[in-house]
Amino acid sequence: MIPAPFLLYLGHSTDFIGIKTSRGLAAFRPDDCVGEFRHDDCPLTLGLPRMTIAQGAAAGAKTLVLGIANSGGTLGRDLVDDAVAGLGAGMHIAAGLHHRLRDEPQLAALAKAKGLQLFDVRDPPADLRVGTGYARAGHRLLTVGTDCSVGKMYATLALTQGLRRRGIVADFRATGQTGILIAGGGIPIDAVVADFISGGIEQLAPERNDDGWDLIEGQGSLFHPSFAGVSTGLLHGAQPEALVLCHDPARTHMRGIPGRALPDLEECLSANLHVARLTSPAVRAVGVCLNTSSLDADAARALCARFEDRLGLPCTDPMAFGVEPILDELLCLEPSARGTTASR
Amino acid sequence: MIPAPFLLYLGHSTDFIGIKTSRGLAAFRPDDCVGEFRHDDCPLTLGLPRMTIAQGAAAGAKTLVLGIANSGGTLGRDLVDDAVAGLGAGMHIAAGLHHRLRDEPQLAALAKAKGLQLFDVRDPPADLRVGTGYARAGHRLLTVGTDCSVGKMYATLALTQGLRRRGIVADFRATGQTGILIAGGGIPIDAVVADFISGGIEQLAPERNDDGWDLIEGQGSLFHPSFAGVSTGLLHGAQPEALVLCHDPARTHMRGIPGRALPDLEECLSANLHVARLTSPAVRAVGVCLNTSSLDADAARALCARFEDRLGLPCTDPMAFGVEPILDELLCLEPSARGTTASR
Repeated sequence: MIPAPFLLYLGHSTDFIGIKTSRGLAAFRPDDCVGEFRHDDCPLTLGLPRMTIAQGAAAGAKTLVLGIANSGGTLGRDLVDDAVAGLGAGMHIAAGLHHRLRDEPQLAALAKAKGLQLFDVRDPPADLRVGTGYARAGHRLLTVGTDCSVGKMYATLALTQGLRRRGIVADFRATGQTGILIAGGGIPIDAVVADFISGGIEQLAPERNDDGWDLIEGQGSLFHPSFAGVSTGLLHGAQPEALVLCHDPARTHMRGIPGRALPDLEECLSANLHVARLTSPAVRAVGVCLNTSSLDADAARALCARFEDRLGLPCTDPMAFGVEPILDELLCLEPSARGTTASR
Repeated sequence: MIPAPFLLYLGHSTDFIGIKTSRGLAAFRPDDCVGEFRHDDCPLTLGLPRMTIAQGAAAGAKTLVLGIANSGGTLGRDLVDDAVAGLGAGMHIAAGLHHRLRDEPQLAALAKAKGLQLFDVRDPPADLRVGTGYARAGHRLLTVGTDCSVGKMYATLALTQGLRRRGIVADFRATGQTGILIAGGGIPIDAVVADFISGGIEQLAPERNDDGWDLIEGQGSLFHPSFAGVSTGLLHGAQPEALVLCHDPARTHMRGIPGRALPDLEECLSANLHVARLTSPAVRAVGVCLNTSSLDADAARALCARFEDRLGLPCTDPMAFGVEPILDELLCLEPSARGTTASR
């Protein structure tokens, strides 16, 4: 486990989506975050006290979390310099980039000299097996998206908390760096060797017989030309009983691919159900989650109502309006359908 | 480059498909293969002289190729022992397993002591980028399959050779261990980190403006629950102008997954075209390749004719009947100008 509390790193970021790991920790583990570190050219804030590296350490932060994500997961010079400063102030360093902290000789040497740890959250387990697609017991829900970074993790966490509030056993299964930092465990599915995508998810959410739910964090999108392979393997490995589609109505193009339009929601949902049926023939959609943070409340509610009409499914913003309608849809299964599912 | 000639390893294999790397080298680089090594319990042969490790070395083999594939790519004790013997006889060792030769301390130490090399063909390049899906110039064909190991590499090599015989510039782009050993280069796409599947293929078959063709070796199947993520990223990265569907009519279930039926060919072709359209909207199917080695010639021709009728595409066994009808379709030649290979 990564020692808390954390100093959350924003660095030079100017991209609200790019700081999603720091933001996720601030949102879901607020009591473990003492402050945020950002350079003067960073216009973003998490609403936490702004601290220098030294101030963060003095405030009790045990770990500096480099909670920023960039496409390709590279570790730039500025990140290395700031990580050196963090180690110098006596903090462990955590990051979830493809480029590993431990592969940076300066960081590896300094951490060793100071008796501090480098946590590479995107390290997959070494003992993964290939998936089989064989039917396994248990209730599983997977979030899918029209694009990357549209709120799949938030929706999954909100659904997990919602089920628990109803007295139902529910576990969040993290598949990305932010989710893993929040949950304290998981498999960074975009970092596993390609042959093991579905197998990794079968391992992350194995058979369960307690009538509880695994809520699996989706990644990427079937319609994203960079990452659809990951999304496909995730669908097959998850073998989901239920899908929730996530979407950001403010997104003007696929993340990182200017000029590429987002898919239509019906088409996206249909494609996800089609792919999921390979290993879960009875899969069904139970709701749509929108990230309406760019809209006022009235416009947000109107948009949710419009998608409900169009798709015939409950539609909500999990952060603004909660997830109760989706939980109702999820749990109000026909008796016959429930029996079929449980016997799988 | 891996020093030829080779001693081809069959080991204890009893599975004809599992020895496909050794078999592929014997078929496509026969002049570079001095013999085959197999234990007494191995009922298989490549038709090469059977040799002990020492006899292979004495016959001039420079490299012992552990050309067997198993699901998951593990390196068992028997393989390690035989590799030790190979090094002891003065040969380099090549393999394409997920489990690396160099990660086996005994092999690493012995190779170093004897000044010999360990070639891990499944090592992906270190500098991969994520894919973009942006349209790029060039003619590209991708083979896809109803299952793993149904002849995609053979078909791709045969199509490459066929185009060259017609005076057209054509390059085979290898994506698997066998193809890489045959071609002397490529990207082992099932071994890249999951985020880089499509990007790896964009790098393997970049923009080209010489009116030549890249013929890209497909992997897995959209309908294989273990590997469909790889196949999906491959389709998106290849951005193919043309698809060729490969199928083994003798296959009774998806490879490694007893009980799971193969997809219907129409459904499989339709799904591949659908996925490919994300990055190549004008993609079209140009043919079907069957592996009819389990049938007599009359039955094979009848089966090809039946699939031609059903799918409205040229259908052939590339090894038995050549690929001329598919090349005609690919190059949009008038039927009158078409050669006749398989009788209809």
